[in-house]
Amino acid sequence: MCVRRCVITVGDLGEFGVVNRITAQLPQGDAVMLGPGDDAAVIGAPDGRVAVSTDLLIEGRHFRRDWSRGYDVGRKAAAQNLADVAAMGARPTALVVGLGLPADLPVSWLDELTAGFADECGVVGASVAGGDVTRCDLVVLGVTALGDLGGRAPVLRSGARPGHVVAVAGRLGHAAAGWALLEAGVSVDTPGLRAAVAGHRRPCPPYASGAEAAELGASAMLDVSDGLLQDLGHVARASGVRIELDPAAFTVFTTAEPVAAAAKELGADPLEWVLSGGEDHALAAVFPAEVSLPESWQVVGRVAEGSDVVVRGREIGHRGWDHFR
Amino acid sequence: MCVRRCVITVGDLGEFGVVNRITAQLPQGDAVMLGPGDDAAVIGAPDGRVAVSTDLLIEGRHFRRDWSRGYDVGRKAAAQNLADVAAMGARPTALVVGLGLPADLPVSWLDELTAGFADECGVVGASVAGGDVTRCDLVVLGVTALGDLGGRAPVLRSGARPGHVVAVAGRLGHAAAGWALLEAGVSVDTPGLRAAVAGHRRPCPPYASGAEAAELGASAMLDVSDGLLQDLGHVARASGVRIELDPAAFTVFTTAEPVAAAAKELGADPLEWVLSGGEDHALAAVFPAEVSLPESWQVVGRVAEGSDVVVRGREIGHRGWDHFR
Repeated sequence: MCVRRCVITVGDLGEFGVVNRITAQLPQGDAVMLGPGDDAAVIGAPDGRVAVSTDLLIEGRHFRRDWSRGYDVGRKAAAQNLADVAAMGARPTALVVGLGLPADLPVSWLDELTAGFADECGVVGASVAGGDVTRCDLVVLGVTALGDLGGRAPVLRSGARPGHVVAVAGRLGHAAAGWALLEAGVSVDTPGLRAAVAGHRRPCPPYASGAEAAELGASAMLDVSDGLLQDLGHVARASGVRIELDPAAFTVFTTAEPVAAAAKELGADPLEWVLSGGEDHALAAVFPAEVSLPESWQVVGRVAEGSDVVVRGREIGHRGWDHFR
Repeated sequence: MCVRRCVITVGDLGEFGVVNRITAQLPQGDAVMLGPGDDAAVIGAPDGRVAVSTDLLIEGRHFRRDWSRGYDVGRKAAAQNLADVAAMGARPTALVVGLGLPADLPVSWLDELTAGFADECGVVGASVAGGDVTRCDLVVLGVTALGDLGGRAPVLRSGARPGHVVAVAGRLGHAAAGWALLEAGVSVDTPGLRAAVAGHRRPCPPYASGAEAAELGASAMLDVSDGLLQDLGHVARASGVRIELDPAAFTVFTTAEPVAAAAKELGADPLEWVLSGGEDHALAAVFPAEVSLPESWQVVGRVAEGSDVVVRGREIGHRGWDHFR
């Protein structure tokens, strides 16, 4: 009979038990020349360059254990870093992950987290090739993604020129709609609302569109992590241009079922989520006007001379997320 | 007159102010093809592979702001990751750093931290090429190092064979001696004691000895982060061998002034610090017996058939650091 304490925790396993348990669950892909277990991993960088991006995710700030399962936290943490690499036009090859874990964290939560990382990496053929485990009162994830540019020039934020078009691949507003539903504490009992909450818990970045955009000749690109207006502001500043968005072009995003259903439920303006909500990790790119874009890219505006990002006919309010405000 | 509040904090600057302030202080070396400011950095990987290692450092667990200045925290955080890459036989090229910062952190502390990272990278010609900033109640550092193997095979933990010799480059016991002095709260008023405390605050890894060992034909190598006995245990297990250490060979380490002075002050056994103290980030390597070792490598034992790490004539007690015990 187990009465007092049935849950196996991270503290029960100890540091090396945790490391062994995690690494046993991580398949290693072709790009990994040396995986977990030594001082460093060795990853293939076939064109002699490696794209690298890192993010820190803190429990209570980037995720809540009462709102998201370990599996979803793992998928989201992997996704946001893999998307950063894809936004350079690179193919993600590997992650390395530093884990801060409370000693009383159930091992089942850690197993879920690991599975989430492995599955999201599997979507793009990448692997978790190494990491570090330490004790912390909160769950903290330090995630670094590596990627291979395949001989292509990296797509920067600074190449947008007047006359180019602005396009988006992936979702906008889902994560913000789901977050608003969770914060409001409303009953999530329809497919549309459930999809919005799922969108908050687990983004779905259009990874392949990154290399695709680079091959199509994109002049600028980034992933939408803090909100489209704010993130396009980085492109406008880096490129020294004005970006004019067409509100009518966002109908495809505002009428997507999860966003529309959540807006109706909360009496909110879905365009606000679409323009200012972060964490969907869509890709926003700028292309010369003559480029013929595939269906995965939705044109939402154009580049003009000047500065700043404007939405025609609309006052812009909140512009996204500052981690210290 | 400034009465209530004279200290500029991270919260005053905001996320983008912090990022701009940090990046303005970071010189970029030759290996950096694209530095901070985009979704990812791009680092040269001239031989088509990249060595990559990551660590998470948590305030209160890996450093204390009342014991170490921001500058020393930056140097130490950089050093321990650069040493991991060096321990593969690679030349460190770049770091990316995720920073979790309290809003009330003085900007002066952040400036010091940044300078520490930049200076430690400068020792090996590497650069902080990118990062991420987010708010956190504690200072959290997620540090990832990249390195170039220069066409050499990575030196793993698994290549030690009976008859090989075990050697150490760098310091042992300094960080443990300094930590013991700080914890005891004794007056640190002699050059030897001050040097021990400095050794705790700032390791001095023998970076160049990593590539040197690879070129000399080292069969196994790692950096000493958790204590020599514990870390050599990884080599013994991975290689399927027994490692026999000669206590007399450690005299050069136990009589080093900082270690000897601290041991005398506290009535402690210096060999315990030398064998079990972590955080000096020495390199421990195994070489075929016929290799002629330069002076930077001190032979401390040999490899035999069997398992485990033993110190001839000595019972082994505490074996190093487990982050969950």
